[in-house]
Order: sequence, then C-alpha cells, then structure tokens
Amino acid sequence: MSESGKRRIRLGMVGGGTGAFIGYVHRIAARLDNDYELVAGALSSHPEVAMESGRNIGLDPARTYTSFEEMAKKESARPDGIEAVSIVTPNHMHVPPAKLFLEAGIHVICDKPLSSTLAAARALAAVKPAKGAKFLLTHNYTGYPLVRQARELVKSGALGKLRVVQVEYPQDWLSTPADPGNKQAAWRTDPKRSGAGGAIGDIGTHAYNLVRFITGLKTDAVSADLQSFVKGRKVDDNVHILLRFQGGARGMLWASQVAPGNENGLKIRVYGEKAGIEWRQDNPNQMWFSELGKPAVLLTRGGAISQPPAASMNIRIPGGHPEGYLEAFATLYSQFADVIRGEGKAYAPLLPSLADGVEGVAFITASIASSKADGKWTKLSEV
Amino acid sequence: MSESGKRRIRLGMVGGGTGAFIGYVHRIAARLDNDYELVAGALSSHPEVAMESGRNIGLDPARTYTSFEEMAKKESARPDGIEAVSIVTPNHMHVPPAKLFLEAGIHVICDKPLSSTLAAARALAAVKPAKGAKFLLTHNYTGYPLVRQARELVKSGALGKLRVVQVEYPQDWLSTPADPGNKQAAWRTDPKRSGAGGAIGDIGTHAYNLVRFITGLKTDAVSADLQSFVKGRKVDDNVHILLRFQGGARGMLWASQVAPGNENGLKIRVYGEKAGIEWRQDNPNQMWFSELGKPAVLLTRGGAISQPPAASMNIRIPGGHPEGYLEAFATLYSQFADVIRGEGKAYAPLLPSLADGVEGVAFITASIASSKADGKWTKLSEV
Amino acid sequence: MSESGKRRIRLGMVGGGTGAFIGYVHRIAARLDNDYELVAGALSSHPEVAMESGRNIGLDPARTYTSFEEMAKKESARPDGIEAVSIVTPNHMHVPPAKLFLEAGIHVICDKPLSSTLAAARALAAVKPAKGAKFLLTHNYTGYPLVRQARELVKSGALGKLRVVQVEYPQDWLSTPADPGNKQAAWRTDPKRSGAGGAIGDIGTHAYNLVRFITGLKTDAVSADLQSFVKGRKVDDNVHILLRFQGGARGMLWASQVAPGNENGLKIRVYGEKAGIEWRQDNPNQMWFSELGKPAVLLTRGGAISQPPAASMNIRIPGGHPEGYLEAFATLYSQFADVIRGEGKAYAPLLPSLADGVEGVAFITASIASSKADGKWTKLSEV
Amino acid sequence: MSESGKRRIRLGMVGGGTGAFIGYVHRIAARLDNDYELVAGALSSHPEVAMESGRNIGLDPARTYTSFEEMAKKESARPDGIEAVSIVTPNHMHVPPAKLFLEAGIHVICDKPLSSTLAAARALAAVKPAKGAKFLLTHNYTGYPLVRQARELVKSGALGKLRVVQVEYPQDWLSTPADPGNKQAAWRTDPKRSGAGGAIGDIGTHAYNLVRFITGLKTDAVSADLQSFVKGRKVDDNVHILLRFQGGARGMLWASQVAPGNENGLKIRVYGEKAGIEWRQDNPNQMWFSELGKPAVLLTRGGAISQPPAASMNIRIPGGHPEGYLEAFATLYSQFADVIRGEGKAYAPLLPSLADGVEGVAFITASIASSKADGKWTKLSEV
Repeated sequence: MSESGKRRIRLGMVGGGTGAFIGYVHRIAARLDNDYELVAGALSSHPEVAMESGRNIGLDPARTYTSFEEMAKKESARPDGIEAVSIVTPNHMHVPPAKLFLEAGIHVICDKPLSSTLAAARALAAVKPAKGAKFLLTHNYTGYPLVRQARELVKSGALGKLRVVQVEYPQDWLSTPADPGNKQAAWRTDPKRSGAGGAIGDIGTHAYNLVRFITGLKTDAVSADLQSFVKGRKVDDNVHILLRFQGGARGMLWASQVAPGNENGLKIRVYGEKAGIEWRQDNPNQMWFSELGKPAVLLTRGGAISQPPAASMNIRIPGGHPEGYLEAFATLYSQFADVIRGEGKAYAPLLPSLADGVEGVAFITASIASSKADGKWTKLSEV
Repeated sequence: MSESGKRRIRLGMVGGGTGAFIGYVHRIAARLDNDYELVAGALSSHPEVAMESGRNIGLDPARTYTSFEEMAKKESARPDGIEAVSIVTPNHMHVPPAKLFLEAGIHVICDKPLSSTLAAARALAAVKPAKGAKFLLTHNYTGYPLVRQARELVKSGALGKLRVVQVEYPQDWLSTPADPGNKQAAWRTDPKRSGAGGAIGDIGTHAYNLVRFITGLKTDAVSADLQSFVKGRKVDDNVHILLRFQGGARGMLWASQVAPGNENGLKIRVYGEKAGIEWRQDNPNQMWFSELGKPAVLLTRGGAISQPPAASMNIRIPGGHPEGYLEAFATLYSQFADVIRGEGKAYAPLLPSLADGVEGVAFITASIASSKADGKWTKLSEV
Repeated sequence: MSESGKRRIRLGMVGGGTGAFIGYVHRIAARLDNDYELVAGALSSHPEVAMESGRNIGLDPARTYTSFEEMAKKESARPDGIEAVSIVTPNHMHVPPAKLFLEAGIHVICDKPLSSTLAAARALAAVKPAKGAKFLLTHNYTGYPLVRQARELVKSGALGKLRVVQVEYPQDWLSTPADPGNKQAAWRTDPKRSGAGGAIGDIGTHAYNLVRFITGLKTDAVSADLQSFVKGRKVDDNVHILLRFQGGARGMLWASQVAPGNENGLKIRVYGEKAGIEWRQDNPNQMWFSELGKPAVLLTRGGAISQPPAASMNIRIPGGHPEGYLEAFATLYSQFADVIRGEGKAYAPLLPSLADGVEGVAFITASIASSKADGKWTKLSEV
Repeated sequence: MSESGKRRIRLGMVGGGTGAFIGYVHRIAARLDNDYELVAGALSSHPEVAMESGRNIGLDPARTYTSFEEMAKKESARPDGIEAVSIVTPNHMHVPPAKLFLEAGIHVICDKPLSSTLAAARALAAVKPAKGAKFLLTHNYTGYPLVRQARELVKSGALGKLRVVQVEYPQDWLSTPADPGNKQAAWRTDPKRSGAGGAIGDIGTHAYNLVRFITGLKTDAVSADLQSFVKGRKVDDNVHILLRFQGGARGMLWASQVAPGNENGLKIRVYGEKAGIEWRQDNPNQMWFSELGKPAVLLTRGGAISQPPAASMNIRIPGGHPEGYLEAFATLYSQFADVIRGEGKAYAPLLPSLADGVEGVAFITASIASSKADGKWTKLSEV
C-alpha cells in the first residue's frame, strides 16, 4: 500500500530497458510514494534485451513481453493485468502504444513530447479510450512545489495582468558532434526518431509547457530562429523564439544544447503589472517573488509562508531539506494514481494532459515553420 | 528486485507510526532504489497506534507488533523473518531495540544520535552481534555525492595538510517556546527523551559527524559555550564550540535552533595548505573548490569533472537535475543493503558505524561538560 | 595632478545642473582618479538654474555660462580655456553641442545614446574636428575590469568560434505611468527628447554596445518586437530583439522597464564552440568562465588569475573589495584623459567611439523599423 | 567646493608614499565627494621617497615634508595650513603623529587599528585636543549604506532582543610565507610594526568593530584560540574567538589569512528573538532580512524600501548600480568633513571614534591574553 494507505496500481512499462535513462527515472518516480507496483514490461524492441532487462529488475518472465502489442493483449486478458502503463520510448514510438493501451482501457503515462508529428498527436487525441482510461504526459517540471505555487500566485492575481515572460532551457551536452555510442544523443539527434525538431522537441517543449502551466496565457503566435550549430547535425540545437500571447503579453524562449557551462538550466521569469517571479530548476527549492515597490522575497519550498494547497500537497520533507527532480517526477505519478483511483479531482487540473501534448507538438511545428519562413509570425492555430 | 537486479532485503521498523517524520523518511529511503521490502513493524509503543499505523502502510496485521521485543522474538523465529530493522524512535529508545536485534542476528539501521547517554552508547558497542549482524547509523548527509567527493579530495591530498574547519548547522524552528502539540519539538526539547543535549544532539552531531567524515581529522578536545535562549527550555538551543584536532588543525562549530531565516543551513568549509572547499546542504548539488592562487571552481554533482568512485557510485540522474535529501538518505540504505548481501566492501568504509555513534555521543558529553566548566578544553577521550 | 603624476585636464560641462543624475555621476567619474579639473559649465538651459548650479559646485561665476554656444566661444578664446567638455543633456541635445565643441577643437565626452535621430548621428560623424579633438561616448559598462577581461577572453580564442549571445537589461522603475514630477522619467518617455525609442534607447543601446564590445561580432540584422505596456506611454518600455551576426552567430536581447524586481539587471552571456562566459552588473566583481567538459570557474576582479592588461589596467583595489559603477565610469574618464594627453594608445581601442555611437542609433532605428514591419529581419546597413 | 556646495577642507597626509595601498585609498576617498583638498604631505620616513611621492601626486614641494613633526609645525604656522590630516602609516606609527596633530588643533583621520599597544591607545585617548580637534578612525566598512541600515534595524527593535552574532573575515593572501618583497605582507607580519597581533589586528578588529557598530551590544568577555599556521610566522594568522555580550547574547568571530578561496570575505549575521540579518562585503549592495515565520527579504542599497536616514544619507546612485569599497570609505571622509565644518551632528554618532579605537586594541589585547591562557574567558575591562 501507498504511504497514505491506498492500494497500489498495477503498472506496466513500454521501453526503459537496461541502460535507458528515462525509464529508470519513471520507475523511481512510480516507486517513491509506493503508489504503484511494476508487474509487467515490454522493455525493448529487441527480444533478448527485453527479456534480460525484465530479469534485471525482477519482473516475472511470464509478464516480460517482447512487444507492446503482446503486452496489451495478454495483460488485458488477465484478471490481475496492469491498470496503467508507462511509455518511455523515443518520441516516434509514443503514439502507437498509447493508442493501443487507451483503446484497451489501460491508463497511459507517456513521456514527452507526445509525438514526432502533429498528425500523430491529433490522431491520438481523437482516440476514444475504453473504460474511462486516463492519460498523463510527464512534463515533470510541473511537479515542483514552487512551480505549483507560481501558478497559484498568477491565478490569485498577485502579479496583476501579465506582461512579459522570459523562459530558457540551456544545456551544453551536445556542443560537439555526439559520440555515436551515446544512445541518448543518438536518437535525440535523429529526425526519424525525435521528429523534425531537436532541442525544440527535447527541451523547448518543456520550457513552453512550463510557461503555459504557470501563466495560463494562451499562445497566439511564434516567431522563431532555429539553428544547427554543430556540423552535420540534422536537427536544431539552438532555439530563439519570440512569443505573442492572447491579451497582449509577450515572451522570449531560448533553448540550447550548445551553451557551455549549462547543465539543465531551465529558468522562468514572469512579470505582471504588480509583481514578478523567478524560478530555476538547478535550485528548485527557492523562488523569487518581487512586488513592485517592495524588496524581493525568497520563497522556499515548505517555507515560512502559507502554501496554497496545490503547492503544499506534494511536499514530503521540511523546508531547507532539498527535494529535487525525482520527487517532482514522483508527484505526477502519485497524483495520477489518485486520479486512477477516482480520488484525484483536486489534482486533475494540475496534471499535463493529452491536450497539452497536442499543443506542445503544435508549438514545435509552428516554430519550425516560422523559422523556415524567416521568422514570420505563425499562429499555433494554423499549423 | 532492486534496480540493479539484486534480491530485496526483508525489513522491519521500530517507531515511525503515522505522523512521525523520520520514519516516513526512512521508508522512502528504503524504497527509492528498491533494495528493501518492508514486511514488519512495531511502529508505536501505543498498541492501537501501532496497529493502525501498520494498516495505513499496508503491513500484514500478523507482522504488525505492539512491542519491539515481540517483533524481535517472532521475526527471528520465522523462516521469512526480517533480515534488517530500522530504528526510528526518540534518542533514548535507540539502544534497547538495537541491542536486542543485533543479538538476534538482525542487521540494524539506527537513527542518530546513537543514544541519550554515553554509557548506553558504550554498552551497545560492547554487544556481540549474532550471525555477523551489521550496524548503520543514519548520518544521512554523508550520502550526498559531493560530500563523498569532498572526502575524496581531502584524502587525495588536493587540499594539502588541513588547517581550519568551519562547520555550522543553523535552524530557526525553535526560536520560540515550542507548541506543546508539536511532537517533533516536544521530544527534542525533553531531556528525558533526547538526552542532556538539545541542539547539540539533534543537529550538532550531524555537523560534527560531517567534519569527521570529510576531513578524517581526529578530535583532540572541545571548548564549548552552550545556551538555552528560549525561556523555560531545558536543553541547549544554541551551541558555540571550538575544536582542536590531532595534528594541529582547528575548528569552529555552530549549531542553533534560534537563528531566524535559517531552515536547515548545514554548511561546511575545510581549508588546507593548498586549497579549500565549501559545501552547503540547501543547494547540495554544488561545491566550491578553491586552490591557492587559482580562481574558485564550482563542482557539480554528476558534473564536468571525473568523479572519484566514492562520489559517483550514488549518482542517479545527470548533472543539473537536482538530487536532494531523500536521495542522499536512500544511498545509505542501498549501500548498506549491499553490505548485508556481502557485496558492499567498497561502501563499508563510507557508511556511518557504531563507533561513529559512540564518538558522536562522546562529543555531546564532552561539549556539555566543557560548557559547564566555563569553556575548559575537554578531551573526548576523557569523558 | 592625477594619482599617476600627470597634469589634470581642464574640463567643462553641458547639462548636469543641480538635481540631475547623470551629470553628478560624470563629475564623480572625472574626479575619482584626479585626471580632470572642472572649471566651466553651461549646466542648464534655464539661465537662473545654470547660475545657481554653478555656484553649488563652486564654479567661477565668470565661467558659468547660460548657453553652450557662449561657453564654446568664450572658453575657446581663453588661454586657460577648457580642453574637454562633458555633454550630459537629454538625447536630442547631444549633437548640437558636440558638433560645436569638436569644431572648436575641444575634446568631447558625450553621454549615450549619441542622438535622437540617425540623421543627426551621421551629421556629427561627418564633422571634421579641429586640432585633432577626440570623442568619447560614455557606454560606462565597458569600463568594468571583468567586461574588459571578457573581451580579451573572446579575442584570445578561449571561447572558440562564437555561436550564441544572450543579453538583457531589465528594470522596473517605469512599470507604472511616471510621476510627472520625476525629471528622469519625464524626458526619457518623451519622444521629442529621447528620440523615437524609449527603453531601447536608454538601456537597449547599453546592452547592444556591451555585446559588440565583448564579442567583436558584427551585426547583420535584427528582428524586433517592441511594446508599450503602460497606458499612455508614447515610447517602448519592453524590447524583444533577435540578432543575426555576420559569420552565423545568433543573439537575443531583452530590455525592459516594466519587469518588477529588477533594478539595473544588465547581464550578458556569450557561448562559443569551446567555452561560455556570464557576467552581470549587480555583482560586477565576478564572472563565470565555463570551458566545455570542465567545471565552471568564477573569475574575480583582481583575483587569482593573471589578468590581461586591458582588464588589469583599471583595477584600483584588491580582489574581494568590490568596485562598482562609479569606478567603471571613472575608468573611461581617466583613460580618455591619457588619450587627450597623447599617452592613451593602449586605451583608445577600448573606449566607445563616435562610430559606436552612430551604430547604436542605427541599431535603435533598425529595431523600431523591424517592429513596425511585424518583425521583418532588418539590416543595420539599410536604415 | 564639494558637490553639496560646501567649502573644501585643507588636508595633509602622513604616510601613503608611492606604492602604498591604503594611502592611495584614503586619497580617493577624500576626493570622491570633493570635500577635501590635499595640500600637504609627509608621505614617507625616507626623505627621498617622501619628496618623489609628493611630486608624483602634485603636491607643492614647499609643503612636501620629510617628517610629520616638521609638517605639524610648519602647517600650524601657515594661515592656509591644513585643517585635517590623514594618518596612513603602519600601526605602531599611528599614535605619535595623531597625538602631535591633535595637540596642534588639527583634525585627525587615522587608519586602524589605533595602535600596536593598549598603553599607546590609552595615552592617545588621554590627550586634550587643541581647538576642538576631532578624531576619525577609518573602520571603513561602517560606511556601507546597508551596514548603516542593519544598525538602524537593530535599534528599531525589528530583530527583537539579540541572541547570537556570527561574524567572519577570511582571506587567503598569507597562506604561504610572505614574499619578502611584499611590503603589505612585510609590516603586517612583523610584530614590531603591527603589534602583537597579526590577523586579529589587521582584520579581526574590523570584524569586531562591525559587530559593535551594528548591534550596539557591549562586550563582556572573550575566549580565544589564536594560531600561526605558516611556519616561521611571528604573529597569528587564524583567529577563533567566542564572545559574551552584556545582557546574555553570544557570538563567534573568525578571522583568517590562510583560508584558500577567500579574498576579503567579511560577513556578519545577527539574530534576535524576532528576526535575523545577513550582510557580506563581497556583494555589499544586498542584505538579507528574515523575520521569524516570514520568508526572507533581500534588501538592496537604494532599493525598494524606505531607507532610514542613516542609511540613505550616503547613497550616491540608484539601486542596482553597485557601489563598493571606495564609496563606503568616501562616506566616512565626507561625513567627517561635515563634522569639521560643524554641520555633522547627524553623522557624529555613526563615525568610528577614538573610544572605538581604544576598545579595538583592548579586544586584541584580551584575545591574545585569553589564547595564551588556554582560552580562559577574559574581560575586556580587565586588560
């Protein structure tokens, strides 16, 4: 049972074989609050790798599958079959299993971006899930307590009408041509597997989703200048985008994989008529809140201010003891477990949805189109 | 099975009933890397609370006990009985169960400080564990990757001969008389349950242990000035200690529970003839390393420098994605699991031991004695 | 005599009457290293204010003028007349006195931006100065030692070929309609006095100049989105600009006067194939230098690394003792004094010139044109 | 005339010949606000150096003296003689000229510590100045606006009754035996010239004075552990001191010249029953203010909070434009000029006095005595 005395959800996994990064992260996230029990997997498209990976993490060999289609079929037929599945494959392999499991009435937890093409994303959105199966897109940064608090601050009107959003996600790990042996780099820089976008799909969508999650602003149009700085790279590795929101607010988005000195420098600043906020992932337990005419205030996770419910409901340990990336990821998992159990009404609006996934791919598509058209302002609604 | 394909250790817990902070933390730590399976508990000394707490976390009622003595007896008798036990009670209740379980051949994971009296600590150290049962004291800050790296840097000679150590652990949560309803505060400020020390036992020992872990310096003597600033408080809430180490190095240790603006501000600086380091818990993924005559360098967990094995063996996610308190805690748990499995040779010297526990209580005892003697330099070896 | 034993330059001032901010700053800058002696002034266009302001700062009444034309004429005729003049009027009143003094053979120190129109800037550039009179534009941020060092690092090849530049200059002081009594705000938001631009002229040009100074990159084109968020404001107060440099590097520039929580948040980051740097004005004595594959290094002004000459020649006090805005400003003044004395060969390339001034106004003009044309990429060479 | 229209004070200087650090700093400080005119000097005890140094800074050769005795005599006799003198010699040479000038009715500005012996300090305090001559000790850190604001916050009761003070001043420049050619290091490590103390006199007194200035707490006793870590050094280079204040507050003071990675890391934290503050010199334009139960607030120099008069009266430029060490130093000079002019009533209590100087030397003396007595608590009133 979970820490809160609730029954555990039976979980399967597609992708995430031995050595995969994000599958490992999903497993920790599922386990941290004890809301899931991993009981089945189709961990690789290579049968031998799939079987060995299953053995390594202690799966029952009878429930270690060599294809997700087989897993969907057999698990659906078991009385104790999986109730939910985590899809942690490369981008182009998100939609096929997601569709199959939703149609089988199995809840889907899917890594981002939703798909490598907008058509595939829309096709998935058109699927009718059986038995009320739900969908979660793991834009994990939305699970940080202070990101939740930022959203609440905006909603509360504490910032006033929003004017300017500055978001950035710089990295440096692709500053040189990727080592062919680096699997992470290999598929992320291969348009066939990652989609037409490189940095924009991998980290640009995280930055974009964070803006949408915190501000609630609806995007009107983008003007983009995408670059591939590394010789021979087939996808973008540096992304400069101007944003226009409905209602007049403006934004800038920078994502880069070629900025030496940046590990995972996700940072967002939001400015309204009355106040501004600033949060960065590399120290996620702090957030600046600055009201016009007053000194800046440093909010801390679990700290000395009454936390709005949406922020506090996922704080595990006292302020000053840092929580991090895995805890934020786990929050999405455990709150989705409550949604699955029918007890997650309060969480549902906070969890990234299929619609968010479609919008993310529309953002990628519009940005690439704008960049090709020399920065022409391009509406998300027109791609 | 664990993420690394190893069998899980069967675990019991003493203390940690519903609402307890540190028991909850221990359970997450045990679960995070999937090296343990919690199967039994004596979660409270109040039978009803014990049973309800067991239900809440899904324990088999047959293995939910109302006393640790009963648990030790019955679990020892089961073929599938617990192999290890976590003791997460107040300080004065650490030694009795620890003794019993060690004598029953069950490995012990015990919260700190080891005991509320030096006599009890020494008595425990004199116990002969059955069947080679091992002991782990959860000085959890030693599990942070950069703390490990700091230790390696000192050992490698990169700092040269050590001269000065500055360590501090300020908090503010006891700046006013504790709310009688606050359980955490209640036992920590009750000399009967916490021992003669207040701040010095709760956080001072963490700071002291961190110094010992990183520097390897052996303490000669302490000169202390302990205060109880809050009216009516029976234990110290502010601790000023000067340290003399064998070989001539000097140190200062400050621990406080009455320093407004500090949540859990554990910070350590170590200076040698050739270089200095600085690390602080509120952003544990960074550490300064400054060689004399060169600009300061910011090391990051998992970052762009070859990590020594002791530091890298517990890094789960890439640099720039923050890990925190729970991950460091979990590292102690999973490495102790390897020790239990007989595969933890590399980890054993890194894990806080029973001897460390005795020394921690000696440090408390000597400091209190020194403070009573108006700061007289007091040797740890003479208390 | 100056601290270095050189004769002082006789200086006059146009603008800078009692209560003016930037004139006061120029006077401190002129005085700090004792390279100038302020002996004459036309401190206001209001005769009474001019005379009283002169009295307040101890000018000889005979050399306190009520118009700059009078000052140019009379000072030129004196054997002990001023050798240089500081022009610290609003933007639209820079060029007329600058032209007159240059033609009178008097060196000109002029605040930025150079002018309120590109035509005026070009007209000034066409002037033939008499007697080799020199010109200095006070882009004061270029006087910071670490900004100089950043420029040297780029020139040395330490960053490799440049790829990405991110620069920003956020403020919040114009987040609401300016108090009509605030002189600083009044002329800066009046298109007649500040030129067509608001934030872009006041702080955007500083940010732009800093990019040019540090990187040496030549700008190809800009794509801009300028906004006036405050109701009734006639000039821009938020500036989003994408930059394309010759050779393929890309940039983003953000300047804002409506970003609550920002005082004078000038910050620049430059990324090349091999390394990145980051510097911010609010703690100008530190700069990050990050080589790919190595941990980030914190350079300090006067700190533990051999400083290149261009950086060290203007350091007054040891590392760790902070220098600030006034010292950087004073550096431009004292190095220009050496240029005037014919001893400034090493400094001349570092001091912002008339050509830099023209380019700054071209940058403003192109950005406004681009913004009006819905972000069309606009070449600086075509405005 | 000064910027505020007041007449300039005629100033002389004792010490500060070419190449001297602190004399150069004093000259800039005297000049920055234009409140002084340097007209005479006895810049070195070596006649040739004195004359050449005078020439270098443009002194009238007739007022360039080769001894301070000569200067005192001749300047006293001139109708336009100096009104004030800056004494910037090594410690043991502060009192003799100070005594002579005070007795000649010439105001004295003296570097710290006041003297190399307590007897000399007390002798100076016993002098009866002629013509109301005033005395300023340049504990320059008290000139920082935020240090002034810290003092006001304490006085206002915002922190409540004080409990704990933590102050430190680490450096690293004497981590190895000093280069014999380094004049700064040479006299500072020579007990004959610096007094019995090394680090404690040079920087320990600054830290101590800062505590006294901000908190107003009166010191009861000290317990000290002083070390000389560098082989062959005759004075202390690392200082650990516990402090007891009247009324029950406690403190820790650390000063070190052997802490690699620290340039001039002066930092102070003050904690009371209601709030805490934290300020550090390496970014002196910011200060933390944390009220119990509220998030921490970042105060900035000139920033968005109504500044108390004592803090704001020495702010030259807007918040976000950093001021530094020289500006703080200049503030002491210009406010002392007002005291000399009889207009400095508001400033007088803020300016470090002769009594502060005597107390500083008593602090040094008591600390050395305590350290020799194995840390015995030693009252300042008993040395």
